[in-house]
Order: sequence, then C-alpha cells, then structure tokens
Amino acid sequence: MNKEELFAEIQKKRSFLCIGLDTDIRKVPLFLREKSEDPIFDFNKAIIDATHHLCVAYKPNLAFYESMGSFGMKSFEKTISYIQKNYPELFIIADAKRGDIGNTGEQYAKSFFEHLKVDALTVSPYMGTDSVMPTLKYSNKWTILLALTSNDGSEDFQMMQDANGEYLFERVLRRSKNWGDEEQLMYVVGATKAQMLERIRLIVPNHFLLIPGVGSQEGSLEEVAQYGMNNQCGLLVNASRSIIYADDSEAFAMRAAEEAEKLRRQMSDLLHQHKLIESL
Amino acid sequence: MNKEELFAEIQKKRSFLCIGLDTDIRKVPLFLREKSEDPIFDFNKAIIDATHHLCVAYKPNLAFYESMGSFGMKSFEKTISYIQKNYPELFIIADAKRGDIGNTGEQYAKSFFEHLKVDALTVSPYMGTDSVMPTLKYSNKWTILLALTSNDGSEDFQMMQDANGEYLFERVLRRSKNWGDEEQLMYVVGATKAQMLERIRLIVPNHFLLIPGVGSQEGSLEEVAQYGMNNQCGLLVNASRSIIYADDSEAFAMRAAEEAEKLRRQMSDLLHQHKLIESL
Repeated sequence: MNKEELFAEIQKKRSFLCIGLDTDIRKVPLFLREKSEDPIFDFNKAIIDATHHLCVAYKPNLAFYESMGSFGMKSFEKTISYIQKNYPELFIIADAKRGDIGNTGEQYAKSFFEHLKVDALTVSPYMGTDSVMPTLKYSNKWTILLALTSNDGSEDFQMMQDANGEYLFERVLRRSKNWGDEEQLMYVVGATKAQMLERIRLIVPNHFLLIPGVGSQEGSLEEVAQYGMNNQCGLLVNASRSIIYADDSEAFAMRAAEEAEKLRRQMSDLLHQHKLIESL
Repeated sequence: MNKEELFAEIQKKRSFLCIGLDTDIRKVPLFLREKSEDPIFDFNKAIIDATHHLCVAYKPNLAFYESMGSFGMKSFEKTISYIQKNYPELFIIADAKRGDIGNTGEQYAKSFFEHLKVDALTVSPYMGTDSVMPTLKYSNKWTILLALTSNDGSEDFQMMQDANGEYLFERVLRRSKNWGDEEQLMYVVGATKAQMLERIRLIVPNHFLLIPGVGSQEGSLEEVAQYGMNNQCGLLVNASRSIIYADDSEAFAMRAAEEAEKLRRQMSDLLHQHKLIESL
C-alpha cells in the first residue's frame, strides 16, 4: 500500500486509527481460553471482525506472540493471514522493533515482507544505516523507524543533545530521511511527546508518523493532530489495551468496537477541522 | 550461570569463544537439506556436538529462525533444548536485540528466560531504562546491552557526541551500569572497534563484554585482548560464519571444529599471557 492509497483509506473511513493487537493470553476472556484451541487467534479474529471498518491499520506486537513459543508464532501467522484474506484494505504493521546488520537484517526483512507479507515493520535505529537498509530494499514496503518513543526511558538516550543542541531523535530523523523515500519510511513518535511534533515536522514535514501512547498511556489526540497532522493526514494513531481489553465478558469484541468508534469519531472531527474530509 | 562460574568455564576450557549459530537454510550443506526433515536443527546439532568442548557459549541469532516462520522457531527451540540437555555447562545467548517497554518488555523477558530458559538476551538500549528493566528483573539471568556495534552504521548514532565530548555509547554504558549489577549485565562491543575498548574499560572495568566481529568481519583477537581483557577475562568473543560455514561437504562439522580450535588456541595463549591460566 503506498502513501496515496493509505490517505485514501483514511479519508474513506474517516479514521487514522491503528489498533494494536498486543494479545496477552492472561487477558483473553476466560470463556475463550476454556473453549478455544487457539484462544489468541480467536480473540484477534473477533476483535478484527468487530473493528475492521473503524481503523485503517492493525499492529500486532511480536513480543506477545513470541512469548508463547512456536505455538504463539502460529497464532501470529494465522492472524496476519486472516486480515489479508478478509480485509485486504487494512495496513498491517509487524511491531518487532528489529534492527540488525547485513545478512541478519536481510533475514528479518525476508521474514516479514516475503514470508508473512506484512506492509510495514518497526525498526530500531541504534545500529545505524546498514541495519535499516535491508528493510528499505523493499520499495513497496514500509520501514517504521523508532524516533521519539512514548515511554519515560526515552529521555535517557533519545533526548541526548550534541554540541549544536540537536537531539538524538532529531539526528535519527535528519540522517535517515534520505535513506529511503517518503513512500517507504515512517517514524514512531509517542503521543506523550506531542509538543515535540512541531520540531519533528520541521525535519520530516511529509512523512507518515506512527503515534502510540493514546489511550492507556494518556497522550492527547487533539495535540497530536494540532502539531502533527499534514495535508495527507500523515498520522497513524495507535491504541491497544484501551480497545482490545475494554471488557472481558462475552461482549468483549462489541465493547472493543465501541472504544474504537469513540476514537474514530474524534478522528473524523479532526480530519474535518483540518479540511481533509468533507463533513458528513 | 554467574560471573564466577563463567570465568571458571573459561579457565577450564582455555577458551572464551562464543559460536554464533546464525544458521541460514541456504548455507546448510545440500546433502543435509535433502535428507533431513529439520535441516536447521540437524545442522546445529552436528556443529554443537563437534565444537562444545572448544567454546563456552552459543549464540543463536533469532532472525535466522524467525525468517522460517513457526517451523524455524521450532528448530530454534529444539536447538536450545539440545544444548541444555547434553551440554548444560554451555552459556546460551539469544541474540534478539530486543528492547520494549512495560508489559511488552516483560513478555520478551518471559519468553526467553522462563519459556526458553536461555542464560542471556541481547537488548537494544534506544528506548532507555524502562525497556531494559524487564530483563534485569531476572537476577540469575543476563541482559546484554548493545553499546558499540561492529558495523559501519555504528558511526551514525552510537558515535554522536554531546557538548562534553561524551559519545552516545559511553552514555549507554555510564547510565545503564547501575541499572543492574555486574552479575547480570554485559555489553556488546564490536571487535572492529578494539581501540575504543580502552575508553570502555574506564567506564565498565569489571563487566563482561560480548565481542562480535572476529572472523568474517576481521576484527583482531590480539587487540581485543590487549585493550579489553580484565582479571576475570571479561570477554566472550563471538565468531559465526567463519566457523559454521567453513565447509559445505559432509565434513562440515569437523571443519567447523578445526576453525573453532584455531581460535581457541589463540585464546589459550592470550589467557596465559594475561596470567589467567597456567601453561599446559
């Protein structure tokens, strides 16, 4: 999916919501754990069926699946296939925060882009250019580089400043933006750092940004749109726990859809305010 | 395995060699691919049986296994189990370069330390303290933090300097060394950056360092020992391709052992020069 197509989906659905499928077996409703042979997949399937019309992207976080061993990876693969088969218009981000050099990096890229056929992969920039190039070789796929994350620990290194006052995360943006084009690079910027979005848009005015931290981490959607939205929206805002764990009864999927719809409605208003969609 | 035990193994085997099990299906000898139902595992098993007495650690890189999907993860799990069952004295490092916050980081830690029961996990520091703490919670396990890697791209960000001239990798060492103790933290420092080991030992004199880049990447073992060895050795030097792909005939495991023995002999000399072992 290219940038134009992603923006078209956002306009069509009046939503720039990404739902994080951070599926933790301990939080899957008990009734599902008891009756299902693959509760992780069945949980995801129900969430996806209930929310696919409210979001433009899904972002399964690999850690949750890997922690279940090869059985968990099977659930992950089934989830990806299910989305691709039933809702091919959805953008799929494998949140793996990888980053390794040469032949190892190529294995990662191959794994996610060729084997699993996801649209995008999150990558950590710490090892520099040759750890990011393997994913950038795929011109029809997206590399989403960590820039300024939403957690407290982001202060430790990402906010390090050089002698000219440039932050590390700014150096990451400035250097990496020419490693690929705007059709294949996005950046992770936490919603909890919304004020920094002004500085970020000076460096990467046109790139899409993946914004976690709305919902359970309490970042503000209004501030994110105020400082970060561009003329193609340029934002994918992710919420995970606040949606998928809204309820643990048999109504969990319906309640997830209600939470997703709340965010979608706010997003629709913001897209309208920024003149990116017509009013209904 | 604690630091004392690791040093005792190094003394006993006269080796601080770590063998990287970066097993690429395309490089597994053809005869094995044709006759084996699980060529990745059978390749690893043969390498392990032939080299276990020459090294103190194995480091499978997750990327190679993940790129084969859930089937590859099964081979990974079987490899880990095989080492644990047959050679329990070997230190096992899951080279995954993870790093994520809160519940996600906990899932990673749980996956590797509880489910797979490896001794150590490599972690990327980019996201800061709260992305490293989940693995540090396991006091009997090791977190191996990327500091200064062996690739060209390490210049991009790891060598960024603040107004006082401190490099990012030095800040990583200085800040993180108090997040855990010397019994649970190691650092990755590339052999290609051997001269930097002097600066690194000023900050972390007693920590173990995991040193990739000897072998195919042509770092110098002598320089690594000269600048990096401490009174408990303090080094695990990794070689992958130069050992495991030394040959692609039916003699591949024997040839791997020959290459490992070459390095072990050099290591034995260096340990002796540094007065950490008696002469034979």
